[in-house]
Amino acid sequence: MTSDYLAVQCSVPDSAGAQQFLSLVAADRGDSPWAPEAWELLSFIDDAGFYNLVHLAYWKDSTAHARWLAEDPLPRWFAGLDAESIDFGAWHEVIQVPTDRVETVYSDPRRPFGLAACAGTEMMSMTTNGYFGAARDRMPVTAIDRLEPAGPLTARENPVDTRRMRVRAECGHNTTVIRSGQYWQGAEGEQRSDYEDALQPKLMAGMRYLADNPTETGTLSLRVMTSLDPDTLEPLRETSVLGHFHDFESLETWSASHPTHLAIYRHAIEKNREYGDARTVVTWHEVFALPRSTGFEYVNCHPRTGILPYAIDVMAVL
Amino acid sequence: MTSDYLAVQCSVPDSAGAQQFLSLVAADRGDSPWAPEAWELLSFIDDAGFYNLVHLAYWKDSTAHARWLAEDPLPRWFAGLDAESIDFGAWHEVIQVPTDRVETVYSDPRRPFGLAACAGTEMMSMTTNGYFGAARDRMPVTAIDRLEPAGPLTARENPVDTRRMRVRAECGHNTTVIRSGQYWQGAEGEQRSDYEDALQPKLMAGMRYLADNPTETGTLSLRVMTSLDPDTLEPLRETSVLGHFHDFESLETWSASHPTHLAIYRHAIEKNREYGDARTVVTWHEVFALPRSTGFEYVNCHPRTGILPYAIDVMAVL
Repeated sequence: MTSDYLAVQCSVPDSAGAQQFLSLVAADRGDSPWAPEAWELLSFIDDAGFYNLVHLAYWKDSTAHARWLAEDPLPRWFAGLDAESIDFGAWHEVIQVPTDRVETVYSDPRRPFGLAACAGTEMMSMTTNGYFGAARDRMPVTAIDRLEPAGPLTARENPVDTRRMRVRAECGHNTTVIRSGQYWQGAEGEQRSDYEDALQPKLMAGMRYLADNPTETGTLSLRVMTSLDPDTLEPLRETSVLGHFHDFESLETWSASHPTHLAIYRHAIEKNREYGDARTVVTWHEVFALPRSTGFEYVNCHPRTGILPYAIDVMAVL
Repeated sequence: MTSDYLAVQCSVPDSAGAQQFLSLVAADRGDSPWAPEAWELLSFIDDAGFYNLVHLAYWKDSTAHARWLAEDPLPRWFAGLDAESIDFGAWHEVIQVPTDRVETVYSDPRRPFGLAACAGTEMMSMTTNGYFGAARDRMPVTAIDRLEPAGPLTARENPVDTRRMRVRAECGHNTTVIRSGQYWQGAEGEQRSDYEDALQPKLMAGMRYLADNPTETGTLSLRVMTSLDPDTLEPLRETSVLGHFHDFESLETWSASHPTHLAIYRHAIEKNREYGDARTVVTWHEVFALPRSTGFEYVNCHPRTGILPYAIDVMAVL
């Protein structure tokens, strides 16, 4: 399973870099036989204040993904960027794991999200949910592997100044990546205001806590992204949080024990019970447990981008 | 499944680099909880005339391997080598794949080889052998993946001068690695002379053909290694060929069609039929189909080492 984030990082949204990126995204929507099986456009402001515009694409077929990288306009443009002369940053994070290192869950099956938007996937009702430890139980490899890290999380002693450089960063073994989604495009009235006024603030408090306490919580990177309409580029009432964690247990510990997560969890379950099938706020997530991987590439990005502050190795692409 | 090659590359066998390496190999034989599940010592002279001394280790548990990398003497020594000051080269190639991207076969079950030497593995009799295409049929993932490459094989246009540098190299998606073994330590008389005078020359002719025609055959790297007694360091009557191929089909094409392989194949089958259970020459192999991977690291090595001439990307470790 491949989840591919390719993005630009600009000081302001309407920069030349973002415009170039969008024209390449449009060019990439041609008849390529290696086209993404599903794709989305998202944006977010990162902790350093930069505007990031993200092309997120999914493939079940890893060979098609490899050919897309080798041949299609958007990844070729990224591969050709000159780190020393561009006046924006760009990054590419490839999450690729065997199926037994993925788990996913959706509060409602009526609309596909993330990986589930690939043709040929199927959503099935199940009962491996609603208790702490369910995410681990849903991930097949945990039957034979505890998904432990190689050692404790440590920030890099000598951060590399990655501006004007093209670098690869390596994450530690069993780094765990979650994309946790919130969709309320179809919510109106009471349900919409409950989400926007009550649940969303709790979610954002939880995210703030994780981002502000990276070492304690094992949070390598946290981005709260807003989905964009791919035609109009207008923001949708859809967000997702992309979090990189030191290991699976870091994610579980916060979920099971921290007041900020319990507030989110209890609120969401309560509203699901209250509205049942009539609930118009949908939550979901997908989790990937990575082996040691260098699928993280940054071109003229600031040194706090993505996993850079916690990378096991940082390498200059020659 | 992890197959980890960690080696030194020296101009002569009894160099200071090789001595240092051997003392670290000895230190690594302590009581580490992350010790290799199986390990071997091998040597070979490469095409550039350098002597390479190799520590080859196997793990079924990828977390134990990650912890060995992080904590044990031999990999820590490798990680700390200063490329600019050492007067030898060193390299580390990690082959790590899910079980469904491995296949292996042994002509005789009475002695374990390679990955099969890990505790907890089991050899089973099977009939998926003796025809062209059997290796593919033995590899589970081929039920859903043809293991095709992203594009044609091309040598790097601008080879990096890797001497005095620490670099990582990335192989292409579905690069296929074979370790093909020959064991005749127990052979004497007629069987030994048949191997040494008849089969081995045919094997070496085949290997020469592959090494001399890399682009036509998809051969990225080919090393004919001799196993060493780990205590006395004396060469054993045991060899193995470590070959890196552009894709699975490159390996299949040579095997099924080239006269040099047919000569080896027919001779080995004929002798197996002739001697049956009394055959004392054992042949075996293990094949790993890699996703795009940067598990290849070279420190002060010459630019023709390993996959360097065909790497998709070469990166300087910072």
